[in-house]
Amino acid sequence: MNALTKVKQSLKRKNLDALLVTQPENRRYLSGFTATDAGIDESSGVLLIPAHGTPFLLTDSRFALHAQAEAKGFGIVLYKKGLLPLLHAMLPKLGIKKIGFESHYMLHSNAEQLFTFASKVDIEAVPLVGLIERIRKRKQEEEIATIKKSVLLNEKVFQEVFAELRPGQTEIEVALRIENNMRLKGAERPSFETIVAGGPNGAAPHALPSNRPLQEKEPIVIDMGLILDGYCSDMTRTIVLGTPDQKTVDIFRIVRKAQLTATAAIKAGVMANKADKAARQVITKAGHGDKFGHGLGHGVGLAVHEAPSLNPRNKKKLQSGMIITVEPGIYIENWGGVRLENMGVVRQDGCEILNEDVTFLDL
Amino acid sequence: MNALTKVKQSLKRKNLDALLVTQPENRRYLSGFTATDAGIDESSGVLLIPAHGTPFLLTDSRFALHAQAEAKGFGIVLYKKGLLPLLHAMLPKLGIKKIGFESHYMLHSNAEQLFTFASKVDIEAVPLVGLIERIRKRKQEEEIATIKKSVLLNEKVFQEVFAELRPGQTEIEVALRIENNMRLKGAERPSFETIVAGGPNGAAPHALPSNRPLQEKEPIVIDMGLILDGYCSDMTRTIVLGTPDQKTVDIFRIVRKAQLTATAAIKAGVMANKADKAARQVITKAGHGDKFGHGLGHGVGLAVHEAPSLNPRNKKKLQSGMIITVEPGIYIENWGGVRLENMGVVRQDGCEILNEDVTFLDL
Repeated sequence: MNALTKVKQSLKRKNLDALLVTQPENRRYLSGFTATDAGIDESSGVLLIPAHGTPFLLTDSRFALHAQAEAKGFGIVLYKKGLLPLLHAMLPKLGIKKIGFESHYMLHSNAEQLFTFASKVDIEAVPLVGLIERIRKRKQEEEIATIKKSVLLNEKVFQEVFAELRPGQTEIEVALRIENNMRLKGAERPSFETIVAGGPNGAAPHALPSNRPLQEKEPIVIDMGLILDGYCSDMTRTIVLGTPDQKTVDIFRIVRKAQLTATAAIKAGVMANKADKAARQVITKAGHGDKFGHGLGHGVGLAVHEAPSLNPRNKKKLQSGMIITVEPGIYIENWGGVRLENMGVVRQDGCEILNEDVTFLDL
Repeated sequence: MNALTKVKQSLKRKNLDALLVTQPENRRYLSGFTATDAGIDESSGVLLIPAHGTPFLLTDSRFALHAQAEAKGFGIVLYKKGLLPLLHAMLPKLGIKKIGFESHYMLHSNAEQLFTFASKVDIEAVPLVGLIERIRKRKQEEEIATIKKSVLLNEKVFQEVFAELRPGQTEIEVALRIENNMRLKGAERPSFETIVAGGPNGAAPHALPSNRPLQEKEPIVIDMGLILDGYCSDMTRTIVLGTPDQKTVDIFRIVRKAQLTATAAIKAGVMANKADKAARQVITKAGHGDKFGHGLGHGVGLAVHEAPSLNPRNKKKLQSGMIITVEPGIYIENWGGVRLENMGVVRQDGCEILNEDVTFLDL
């Protein structure tokens, strides 16, 4: 059953006549419309999905050609004076009396305007959270194949840049080289701001690239991802230029063991926090439990961060078809960090790792 | 009077005890905290501004060091379990009974959680729209000086890339070169996705760079901007490689005349739509009125698009200290486009153009 059909069924179960889709990845997921939004207040379009009949993509003239080419099966309707006047014209004609909207991706001020409009025309607007995201969590095999391509392209970029990595190059230079290489190879864009963090800069999990030159022997954390055909990849490697010292090797081995242990623990039916715990125990036993300050991983798909979250608090069970990251790390102030991140598919009998790159110090 | 004082006065006038600031540019404007958000649902911090006394920056451990270094005069408080539990602990102690929030930058679902929390602890949460944006509209001279630097750095990048522009380079290559050059010269990042649109691609005002190679004689629209010390620049030039043909020269001259005419019409007290009209009349008289499908310009500051909007519908008066773009254009399907964009400061007696670059075909 395709995603649109699932959404329509869900609307019928909730006695809703239609759904407004404002969240950009949800919009792309259902319609194929690839436009991105410059921000939550600069939307390039909204889907109107009636529980019965043809769905619509509402957009403005700038996107008309794209919309027609991409959103197959959707009626394309252009708004000139904004969304509400268009809904005013459309909803009564379509017999829509009760319409859901994405409460988790609509500004409060816009929702207020929607409520005001709806009450005037005797329509009920109903806030919903995560209806489409719940469908997106479990990927179809076609989606998994696209994500695999995204992962492999990302690895190709990493390997090319890694081969030319030299001491003295700055973190920013390397990050730019990575992001350029992504786009020249056909990625739509990076899926997040590339992290290149050498030595002490690696002690912050979310370090941004600086003008600091990379040095020999220090651990260098490279966390990078790209978007290909809409789908994200996300990979972290920690590498060393020259021969690593013993401390780096020791920390690296702990993190790699944590990663492999967690990967072995993952399969459908396992609670997300159990996967996290598998990695955390390895790191804690090695005496660094307080240096692993984030969760084990997160879902990846059209968004680089999506459900499920793998952390000590999430007791929900992993389901087959989920795509997740497995990314333990150890971060030591004034020294640096080691993080290793792969992506995998949750299967009935285990975790199928999508990565092929084996740039690991211990191999 | 500084911005924080203005905000506090505004709170007092509204009988509010405090304001929650979630909008990232507003947060930076008031606190100096430079962190950016990966998205509206991935905040790097929130300001809590009491009407009296010390303001606070609420953030998480990832940003603790940055926050302490940057947000001078702010109490830094870290949340571990999210914002609401922290507010639960802080607001009663501070005697806050009535708190405003930014309705135009809070998700409806988060606002609902805020209302639920507030009602439990007998606090009133009040939606506000644009309180800080109204203060940001008129720039202090220091801000204007920073914006001037941003404009000049942007021009330097343009001129360097322009000097090496050759037929056969693709739009994407040129856009990447521009964005790299920005970052290597110290820009925080581009202020929007760089547009390089050659020939027919220039017929869409918001064209994204493609793999199409640039060709001789065709008009090439380059629209670019960067962020320096938080402040945005935004400039468009339309250039030609080799000798332009007569049609290109003709269209160019009309657009340039429209730009100069509008610039001459701008000063404090003039209605925004009158400035737009000044440019539109020139283009309409020349027979291309229907080919100028967007407004004349927009405000620029910490955000690349902010108030005021210069378009046919905005009857508000321009005020001194506003920074605006003046960017008329003519877009002809299957042929291409010409757009010229400068930034200027609205002064009592006119419009002070910040640009120094004179890469214009007619000069």
